[in-house]
Amino acid sequence: MSQSSRILLLNGPNLNMLGAREPKHYGTLSLAAIEANVQALAAKNNIELECFQANSEEKLIDKIHQSFKKVDFILINPAAFTHTSVALRDALLAVAIPFVEIHLSNIHKREPFRHHSYFSDVAEGVICGLGAKGYECAFEFAVEFLAKKA
Amino acid sequence: MSQSSRILLLNGPNLNMLGAREPKHYGTLSLAAIEANVQALAAKNNIELECFQANSEEKLIDKIHQSFKKVDFILINPAAFTHTSVALRDALLAVAIPFVEIHLSNIHKREPFRHHSYFSDVAEGVICGLGAKGYECAFEFAVEFLAKKA
Amino acid sequence: MSQSSRILLLNGPNLNMLGAREPKHYGTLSLAAIEANVQALAAKNNIELECFQANSEEKLIDKIHQSFKKVDFILINPAAFTHTSVALRDALLAVAIPFVEIHLSNIHKREPFRHHSYFSDVAEGVICGLGAKGYECAFEFAVEFLAKKA
Amino acid sequence: MSQSSRILLLNGPNLNMLGAREPKHYGTLSLAAIEANVQALAAKNNIELECFQANSEEKLIDKIHQSFKKVDFILINPAAFTHTSVALRDALLAVAIPFVEIHLSNIHKREPFRHHSYFSDVAEGVICGLGAKGYECAFEFAVEFLAKKA
Amino acid sequence: MSQSSRILLLNGPNLNMLGAREPKHYGTLSLAAIEANVQALAAKNNIELECFQANSEEKLIDKIHQSFKKVDFILINPAAFTHTSVALRDALLAVAIPFVEIHLSNIHKREPFRHHSYFSDVAEGVICGLGAKGYECAFEFAVEFLAKKA
Amino acid sequence: MSQSSRILLLNGPNLNMLGAREPKHYGTLSLAAIEANVQALAAKNNIELECFQANSEEKLIDKIHQSFKKVDFILINPAAFTHTSVALRDALLAVAIPFVEIHLSNIHKREPFRHHSYFSDVAEGVICGLGAKGYECAFEFAVEFLAKKA
Amino acid sequence: MSQSSRILLLNGPNLNMLGAREPKHYGTLSLAAIEANVQALAAKNNIELECFQANSEEKLIDKIHQSFKKVDFILINPAAFTHTSVALRDALLAVAIPFVEIHLSNIHKREPFRHHSYFSDVAEGVICGLGAKGYECAFEFAVEFLAKKA
Amino acid sequence: MSQSSRILLLNGPNLNMLGAREPKHYGTLSLAAIEANVQALAAKNNIELECFQANSEEKLIDKIHQSFKKVDFILINPAAFTHTSVALRDALLAVAIPFVEIHLSNIHKREPFRHHSYFSDVAEGVICGLGAKGYECAFEFAVEFLAKKA
Amino acid sequence: MSQSSRILLLNGPNLNMLGAREPKHYGTLSLAAIEANVQALAAKNNIELECFQANSEEKLIDKIHQSFKKVDFILINPAAFTHTSVALRDALLAVAIPFVEIHLSNIHKREPFRHHSYFSDVAEGVICGLGAKGYECAFEFAVEFLAKKA
Amino acid sequence: MSQSSRILLLNGPNLNMLGAREPKHYGTLSLAAIEANVQALAAKNNIELECFQANSEEKLIDKIHQSFKKVDFILINPAAFTHTSVALRDALLAVAIPFVEIHLSNIHKREPFRHHSYFSDVAEGVICGLGAKGYECAFEFAVEFLAKKA
Amino acid sequence: MSQSSRILLLNGPNLNMLGAREPKHYGTLSLAAIEANVQALAAKNNIELECFQANSEEKLIDKIHQSFKKVDFILINPAAFTHTSVALRDALLAVAIPFVEIHLSNIHKREPFRHHSYFSDVAEGVICGLGAKGYECAFEFAVEFLAKKA
Amino acid sequence: MSQSSRILLLNGPNLNMLGAREPKHYGTLSLAAIEANVQALAAKNNIELECFQANSEEKLIDKIHQSFKKVDFILINPAAFTHTSVALRDALLAVAIPFVEIHLSNIHKREPFRHHSYFSDVAEGVICGLGAKGYECAFEFAVEFLAKKA
Repeated sequence: MSQSSRILLLNGPNLNMLGAREPKHYGTLSLAAIEANVQALAAKNNIELECFQANSEEKLIDKIHQSFKKVDFILINPAAFTHTSVALRDALLAVAIPFVEIHLSNIHKREPFRHHSYFSDVAEGVICGLGAKGYECAFEFAVEFLAKKA
Repeated sequence: MSQSSRILLLNGPNLNMLGAREPKHYGTLSLAAIEANVQALAAKNNIELECFQANSEEKLIDKIHQSFKKVDFILINPAAFTHTSVALRDALLAVAIPFVEIHLSNIHKREPFRHHSYFSDVAEGVICGLGAKGYECAFEFAVEFLAKKA
Repeated sequence: MSQSSRILLLNGPNLNMLGAREPKHYGTLSLAAIEANVQALAAKNNIELECFQANSEEKLIDKIHQSFKKVDFILINPAAFTHTSVALRDALLAVAIPFVEIHLSNIHKREPFRHHSYFSDVAEGVICGLGAKGYECAFEFAVEFLAKKA
Repeated sequence: MSQSSRILLLNGPNLNMLGAREPKHYGTLSLAAIEANVQALAAKNNIELECFQANSEEKLIDKIHQSFKKVDFILINPAAFTHTSVALRDALLAVAIPFVEIHLSNIHKREPFRHHSYFSDVAEGVICGLGAKGYECAFEFAVEFLAKKA
Repeated sequence: MSQSSRILLLNGPNLNMLGAREPKHYGTLSLAAIEANVQALAAKNNIELECFQANSEEKLIDKIHQSFKKVDFILINPAAFTHTSVALRDALLAVAIPFVEIHLSNIHKREPFRHHSYFSDVAEGVICGLGAKGYECAFEFAVEFLAKKA
Repeated sequence: MSQSSRILLLNGPNLNMLGAREPKHYGTLSLAAIEANVQALAAKNNIELECFQANSEEKLIDKIHQSFKKVDFILINPAAFTHTSVALRDALLAVAIPFVEIHLSNIHKREPFRHHSYFSDVAEGVICGLGAKGYECAFEFAVEFLAKKA
Repeated sequence: MSQSSRILLLNGPNLNMLGAREPKHYGTLSLAAIEANVQALAAKNNIELECFQANSEEKLIDKIHQSFKKVDFILINPAAFTHTSVALRDALLAVAIPFVEIHLSNIHKREPFRHHSYFSDVAEGVICGLGAKGYECAFEFAVEFLAKKA
Repeated sequence: MSQSSRILLLNGPNLNMLGAREPKHYGTLSLAAIEANVQALAAKNNIELECFQANSEEKLIDKIHQSFKKVDFILINPAAFTHTSVALRDALLAVAIPFVEIHLSNIHKREPFRHHSYFSDVAEGVICGLGAKGYECAFEFAVEFLAKKA
Repeated sequence: MSQSSRILLLNGPNLNMLGAREPKHYGTLSLAAIEANVQALAAKNNIELECFQANSEEKLIDKIHQSFKKVDFILINPAAFTHTSVALRDALLAVAIPFVEIHLSNIHKREPFRHHSYFSDVAEGVICGLGAKGYECAFEFAVEFLAKKA
Repeated sequence: MSQSSRILLLNGPNLNMLGAREPKHYGTLSLAAIEANVQALAAKNNIELECFQANSEEKLIDKIHQSFKKVDFILINPAAFTHTSVALRDALLAVAIPFVEIHLSNIHKREPFRHHSYFSDVAEGVICGLGAKGYECAFEFAVEFLAKKA
Repeated sequence: MSQSSRILLLNGPNLNMLGAREPKHYGTLSLAAIEANVQALAAKNNIELECFQANSEEKLIDKIHQSFKKVDFILINPAAFTHTSVALRDALLAVAIPFVEIHLSNIHKREPFRHHSYFSDVAEGVICGLGAKGYECAFEFAVEFLAKKA
Repeated sequence: MSQSSRILLLNGPNLNMLGAREPKHYGTLSLAAIEANVQALAAKNNIELECFQANSEEKLIDKIHQSFKKVDFILINPAAFTHTSVALRDALLAVAIPFVEIHLSNIHKREPFRHHSYFSDVAEGVICGLGAKGYECAFEFAVEFLAKKA
């Protein structure tokens, strides 16, 4: 794979509370730990990885817009925005960057309103319930995906 | 009840317009007047009360996160976010602070999309249609709730 | 407020079993205790309060009919009839007495069929999940409501 | 028409990406070009026109609040917020300024979730699928609407 | 028609309040006046007519059971029970007496839950919105119906 | 009642086949016989009655348009158009002539798609299942309705 | 099993008409005959059995309340109340007595509104379509159930 | 734009009653006035415009068929047929002439059955609620549309 | 088969445009060619065949009424009326002539509103997607059907 | 009852795992034990009983086909096939052997998709939640059913 | 048509019982007779025809897989699998062989769950209700379909 | 992790056709290649891996039953059975072995009936759209999952 590949890891609202928040659903790992994991993988694969978390729909949208033609793949855990944000979906469609949707918990075991996603039908793939491992899987898939295209 | 109890009063989008806005639904009282009412009750009950209003989902989420382990009870009128914000719901679940949901108007008399709330099934209780009185009721309930736990 | 205000407190089916019945949902307070609470408030506010409980839809309807032009406000916990009795709704509409709907438990945390009420869209307001406190809140709202009209 | 009429043109999330974004749906015109078009019409009609775009629900709400009693008509393309933002709807209702809803693309040709709008039933009218021409039509309608009221 | 034909006129809950109750829907005629009207018609047609009103589902069911093999036709305005009482429907099926369903107001102009009836699909016919005239029509239909069978 | 009252009796598609068609649902009476019945009543009540049947939606609409300000009441059996013709509904709304909707058979005993009518919520009243008697009832109601207004 | 076990057999509205009523659905056996059958089984098993039928929801509720801590098992055929009575369901939950739901006919062969029961999800088990045999089965199950607990 | 461009303006059932009909929804302008407006625009733009109104689905279909390869753009207000006529939709698809759908009133403010259109998903664009101005907007869009293609 | 058998072939709206219209769905064969095909089969089988196409619901209904007791079997492609015309269904039921429903294209591959037919549940059989071959199949089935009855 | 009566007991997929599998729902009894119970009853009643379990839809269908005219009654616990197998339903309809549907657990307490059965509306009766006792009840009902027919 | 064309005729579960099974729906012809009919046609058209029936989804899938690149067209009556088998649909999609779906009975006259097919939207065409004739029609269509492609 | 861990990899119907079948959805890799990939990972991790594919629901169920207490984790791609097989779900619940659900393609981009899974709510996690990579991810997750438990 080309040396210059850039990946953006986006995390949505409340994920800054990871570890403290509802351990039954999300485990005890902090977001920093998860991001460090993926940074390690990035280093190993010679990928430029940027990590970004926001509780604000606007900030996530702006970050995506800024990635236009600058980022090759996005890994996104939209958290609660999964079920409500058409604007975030539109931002991803606008920049036309391929992405994988990640959920720490298995959303199919939770409230019915969490079973619908505004992202799944335009994502390359979806991973849920694998915890922090899901981020690694998504990253590895991205690496292979970019390698095939290169 | 313990002297150190802290309560947070949150008001969602457009409630800064109270008095001006749709008096048929919301009456002519301003938000400042309502907050003053509850502050008076807080003083009488030796409760620390903070009041916060925002038109931004992000700011409400951040305020809730900052309350983690610092606030004992939340009174929230999520306004329009009642029907759309899973992220705000998740923020409340993340900090695990008990709360009461308040609506000034009787949402069951209005458009069908206002009949569903993302908060009611995780709230201690729900009050609607009692106007400014609803805030007082919720506050008094919180005081009793905390007294029982203490 | 006028000295002559009269309020009727109605409780629907199975509420005579309070205390014994499903404490998880309804707490351990008896109905007599709740009624005594509200009677104390009535005395303090110089209000004539009548309390009535029935397991029979007919008896509740008859009581409402007898209140026509004799009662100024109704506090009603329709219990199971909340979800099934159009006849009780019609009785309240027939006498055109303003009322508040009360539920001890938070009906939004329970079975889906308890989420719909035949009363909410014609009530002044709705309170649920505040336990016995809900009756006090409703009473206080009624007092203020009548004071404004007087 | 009175010389002092003021119109506000609001554009919602991702419309800053126009031209780059999904040309199949939105054409190749930039937002700046569209705004310039309408400004030209405004000049010709002696109307004060302000243009505002945001990816943030809060900023759009705040802009609407600030227009209270200062703006006579609003032209709004809520973009993705069309389908999700009750708060924006409430802001428009709160200031009680008449408005027309505009969509560049024909939303009825797209995903089913784009067929429902939180704005249409409270708008004066709705235009979709006419591209940049839709903004001109909406502007002209506003001019006639204000002329009739004057 | 045979001299011995017997017709039962049943009126459901809250119809005892006619005249006082919601004149917009039900007019200002009392139930006694309506029953007198039909009694006059009965006299003219040599029919034995019994009139019965109850706010109690049980009393209506019992009255129907007692009519078994003693009554030839039933005219029924089930009022609120129209939409909720399977037991009343079953009582009519149990005695297998033909009946016509009557509503004073046009139920199709009212709340959606009033559009469904547990009686219409087992009635001979349905009349709504004709006010007191509807009772006369139903009676006349019954007379012709019995005459054809005789 | 004024001597000059005019009533229009409209019958929709396939009713020209009455007698031959599906006797289980519609009986063996011909449409001519039904119309003659109502004409006899009209003569007795000094009403001008016009009868019109068409299998064409357009012809029914045109007839209604021509009645504008010339007819005081309409009796209509829209037959199959009951369930499908918004245009006929709109014609009746356009001329703003009060009307009663009639069905020979009890539509609630038939296919589910016959349970919905585009006319019932804008009619004065609805009669179904009374066969030819239903036309007489509707006519008599119209006479009383016009007498009250006169 | 303990000698002192007490079972209550409840039958709902219209079951007093058994034999006369709709033999296609319910057979020709009278309720007295069915109760005698079960009484014979009770005698053989040394069980105190009380039988009670009512057309009144209130009377059934009162009977259940009176059974609180006095009855070990309930056999109930709620008849039409199966589909409409949340109050009866609540009465059973209030006394927390295990019960089996019985239907003489196979309700799944009948009208769609008979396919839903307010009792099945809180019953130990459900029997339908076995006619009078269903009561015996339910009784035998109750005996075994109580024996296991004893 | 080419001198030879031909546009067809179609108006559906009841629009011949404009002015008289439901002024709350449709204003007081006559159809003739609206057509004259558009004819003036056509003259100014050197377009051949034909105007046609019918209360008959067949006549509208025939007119569309006759336009095959003879007309470049259609402006259509299908009125009540919007919600019911698949045949008219098919006629437009059959001739493959681009069209804009127009509604005088804002159909989203009216009965729910008026919210669905059989035309919107195959139209170039949709305009509603702009009154007579909507026809002008549609005409101007057509002119630009044809100019781009030319 | 009897020499005197008569079959009617009906084609609904827009089928006169066959060949020109949407070749992706309907192929390039003209209706005249299809009718000629079936006429050839009729000649071979000694059947009197009449062919009739209309864009008018009324004309199709009238043609069916005229066939009463004169035609033995109907082959019908109701085209767009498949999904909207209860009147046409009623006409077929009125004359009680057995019929087969034909569609040139496979309606299950098209828009969801084309998946429901008002004819299928009262037809002998249904054929779709076989193109012109479907008419031959239907004709041959009719011949066998009539032969069996003869 | 005739000596030659034959009954077939069918058990569907996963019931071979009884005892090991989800004891919360199914108890700790093995299938062999249940079958032995019923065999004992068969011996006592002079009935030929065959027991058959399969995890294969095909094998269950084949067994039912082989029973055609050889078996007088079927007892079936279709297990998971209850909710998914139209083919098994069709097999039972094909051989036209009366049957009772049995479920060990109360399916109404479980996931919503287990509330619908493809068998209940064509069964003689349904038993659920009675555990192994349900099989005995069904067997006894079958014996009585066959005795009545004999 | 080429001499080497191969067609596969598949019949699903319970069709081996044809003749014995539910003659009201399926007639009295045996499957062997139907297959012989189609074989005769195949001989006449110089087509290699294989016939296969199974009550097993797996066997049908395997047979389809074995046809990959060996069969030119499939005629399939999926019987009960029509409504439940995504796996069979997927097998047909996997081998990409064009097919026609056949039903002996008119599935639109039967239970609602038989109105949906997992095959229709991917079939060339669908035939139902024509009995054994439907197989011949499908075969003839296949012959023409293959001739056109050749 | 313990040396003795055993993992079972199950693949459902039609996956034997991988490579040949619908490459748009599933890519060009064969199942053997995918299984070899995972075997390589198993070897590296000292895991005993068994691979099994079947087009038969019964064979998959039997394989799962045989794994009871012998297998520590299951990786399953249920293919078409995802959407239809309650029996397979029950088999997994019966043996209570944790599992991950895998789909090669992104099922959210396909037909709506593929959006629901009978497995997701009881799986540890779900992966879709990652192609062959998804199997590796699932395997790695299983290894970590077992390591944590060990």
